Amino acid sequence: MSLDVINVAVVGYGVVGSATVQTLIDNYEVVRRKTGISIKVKAIVDLYIDKRDDKYLPHVEIKSKSYKDILSDSSISIIVELIGGVTIAKEIMLEAIRAGKSVVTANKALLAINSREIFEEAKKHNVMIGYEASVGGGIPIIRVLKDDLVSNNINDIYGIINGTCNYILSRMSSEGKPFDEILGDAQAKGYAEANPTFDIDGIDTAHKIAILSSIAFSKYIPYESVDVEGIRDISFTDIQIISEFDCTLKLLAIAKRVDNKVAISVRPTIIDNDNLLASVNGVFNAVMLDGDRVGKTLFYGRGAGGDATSSAVAGDVVAIAKALSSGNIDAKTPLGFTEESDITIVSMDSIPSSFYLRFMVKDEIGVLSIITNILAKNGVSVYKALQRDFSEDGKTVPLIFMTHEVEGNLLNKAIKEIGELSIVVEKPVVIRMEI
Amino acid sequence: MSLDVINVAVVGYGVVGSATVQTLIDNYEVVRRKTGISIKVKAIVDLYIDKRDDKYLPHVEIKSKSYKDILSDSSISIIVELIGGVTIAKEIMLEAIRAGKSVVTANKALLAINSREIFEEAKKHNVMIGYEASVGGGIPIIRVLKDDLVSNNINDIYGIINGTCNYILSRMSSEGKPFDEILGDAQAKGYAEANPTFDIDGIDTAHKIAILSSIAFSKYIPYESVDVEGIRDISFTDIQIISEFDCTLKLLAIAKRVDNKVAISVRPTIIDNDNLLASVNGVFNAVMLDGDRVGKTLFYGRGAGGDATSSAVAGDVVAIAKALSSGNIDAKTPLGFTEESDITIVSMDSIPSSFYLRFMVKDEIGVLSIITNILAKNGVSVYKALQRDFSEDGKTVPLIFMTHEVEGNLLNKAIKEIGELSIVVEKPVVIRMEI
Repeated sequence: MSLDVINVAVVGYGVVGSATVQTLIDNYEVVRRKTGISIKVKAIVDLYIDKRDDKYLPHVEIKSKSYKDILSDSSISIIVELIGGVTIAKEIMLEAIRAGKSVVTANKALLAINSREIFEEAKKHNVMIGYEASVGGGIPIIRVLKDDLVSNNINDIYGIINGTCNYILSRMSSEGKPFDEILGDAQAKGYAEANPTFDIDGIDTAHKIAILSSIAFSKYIPYESVDVEGIRDISFTDIQIISEFDCTLKLLAIAKRVDNKVAISVRPTIIDNDNLLASVNGVFNAVMLDGDRVGKTLFYGRGAGGDATSSAVAGDVVAIAKALSSGNIDAKTPLGFTEESDITIVSMDSIPSSFYLRFMVKDEIGVLSIITNILAKNGVSVYKALQRDFSEDGKTVPLIFMTHEVEGNLLNKAIKEIGELSIVVEKPVVIRMEI
Repeated sequence: MSLDVINVAVVGYGVVGSATVQTLIDNYEVVRRKTGISIKVKAIVDLYIDKRDDKYLPHVEIKSKSYKDILSDSSISIIVELIGGVTIAKEIMLEAIRAGKSVVTANKALLAINSREIFEEAKKHNVMIGYEASVGGGIPIIRVLKDDLVSNNINDIYGIINGTCNYILSRMSSEGKPFDEILGDAQAKGYAEANPTFDIDGIDTAHKIAILSSIAFSKYIPYESVDVEGIRDISFTDIQIISEFDCTLKLLAIAKRVDNKVAISVRPTIIDNDNLLASVNGVFNAVMLDGDRVGKTLFYGRGAGGDATSSAVAGDVVAIAKALSSGNIDAKTPLGFTEESDITIVSMDSIPSSFYLRFMVKDEIGVLSIITNILAKNGVSVYKALQRDFSEDGKTVPLIFMTHEVEGNLLNKAIKEIGELSIVVEKPVVIRMEI
């Protein structure tokens, strides 16, 4: 067998970039033995390359501050874009594509917003785009959906796909501490960004479920189609009560298909502790899929961190290198379809679900009756009710309900009415249940 | 895009064969939309085809009792072998390969015994072999190891990969019933074969871990290299005691690498309930992998059954169809390597582990001291000891120990000595722990 050499340029030498270079250099021989292909990191582009220093850099021939240098280097056939963001990263990707180079990226924000433009351009220039690392870190969920489960109609997707949120919720649950305290500690430890908005408000999760849904349902689904609610307002009171019901609160990305309608949301969600997803703790991610032929499957692994993410990046680099080496670029279906399906996006509130409700009410006679009456009148059927006997201030008590399946639209009407009662002293808490 | 048609023949129309035809016909349009390729089931070969009757058969042009018919049909490019067994199935696969046809199979026994011969022949004739369905039913574990984790050195593999054994152990544990009773019921329900030897004695599991290990460690590993112990002798007493320690007993396939040495075994194994594998119940399968870059990952799904297995078969058919359609047959690395690694196989007994020990002893003064003395003398250090106060016959009591990590070789010496004591009235129970 002829020994092929494929040259790669890594753009962005931060956490994932440097881990990717480490993977490709340290495990160069592993990949060569498995594939017969030598993958060489020929260039690293980074604005601060002058200040970087590690044992891998001396092995790399070209170190530059400008990506323009590598676009004109015809010996480089794969560009690994790991700078993140949606402005300069987009420019680099499009220019690389137009220069005839295949691109590997972990940039979920860019793909969730601009996938159509980028993928159409890639098809036009017959180059491949690898984006396995954009969702689920080291978990090969993109390829599973695109290739392995290709013969399935996907019925639903449940994902814990943001390590920061899962880390915070896991610690709130195990340590019994409030959100702000855990967030501060997570920031100090590097598990949450200084500006954590993207993570804790669910935006990053929305980007990722938009990408997974696009593949699963064969249609460009912009992330604006995703109903998003983050974990900022999660109260420790609810986490405590939920755990008494042998349940766990997770930030779940959900895509559910009913015939040719799909609802996609990111919301704090209650799941039963018997569900494997309840055991996915800390920075680990997991995606549970149901396909009409394969049934229920689950894929679990590290959702972030340089090493795990670099495994996915390197997997894409190798897949593209194999295609390049055999002269067979498969650029036709970057998102896993050749023509779009006829699915339409509907609101998650139109799909029935059980709900957990908590009302903080004045400790007066008849309150339970007033509230249950409003629920019943609006078609909300309760299967579990709990009036807690504790009252922090001696005047208000929590009333907790779990409902049978009901459309969110109907429930919202009842909640609005209850929230306006003078006996209800706080904004009602409504959390979807998937049990 | 040109619409390609790829013709497929399915050989063997049993549970998996008929489910595969159903998948390819029912989801024909799903696959076409995703890939641009029309996959047509052109022929079904089955010895009893005259007696088969379902709504799919009328859609299939050729129905035959002899596979010879389809080998000479040049319009058929993929043969799906689903008859099982290692004699006629081998003949069909080799003849199909020599006729220039790619082959998809779920036949783990054949591959575990004859993979070198079959894969070398396939390379020679430049045809592809898909065998995703051979391990883990619908779980895409073969492709994960071959492609997605290609940049990793795999450190270890832990698999629950036999649905029958997992079903029996799950029910023994949840219902508190002995092995024979659950096995009989499992047979009545179709979850265990009339002759269950292959499953319950661990042979099927050994076939599967041999295949996974061959890919993971880049070397043809015959299944004879696997230390095998089944679940036939599992006593309900132990399942009960183990659960009191918040642990679960599973039939685990294990491959562990230490430098360039790999130990592979199939044994009843105790795992902590915190381990996700402990929550894999019934006929579900799961494979946990550790790669040096990706870290710990887990892949979970239905390990058996026609529908789930057909998802993996169809995934392979589509992957080969895409390769055929683009004129790019990747026949170089059927087992995921171009040259063999230098790993050597060692006994699992040479790799230290914790162990659970149970001795049934005469209820006499000094027994505990005699036994712990023998353990200590042989370098076996105990971290937990439990003398149960119940005695079924008033004369014997169980002594239970959990050991610190110790080589099985050393432990075996101690166990032999203890087993020969007159105060020990039953064969000692020794179960490996992975916690």
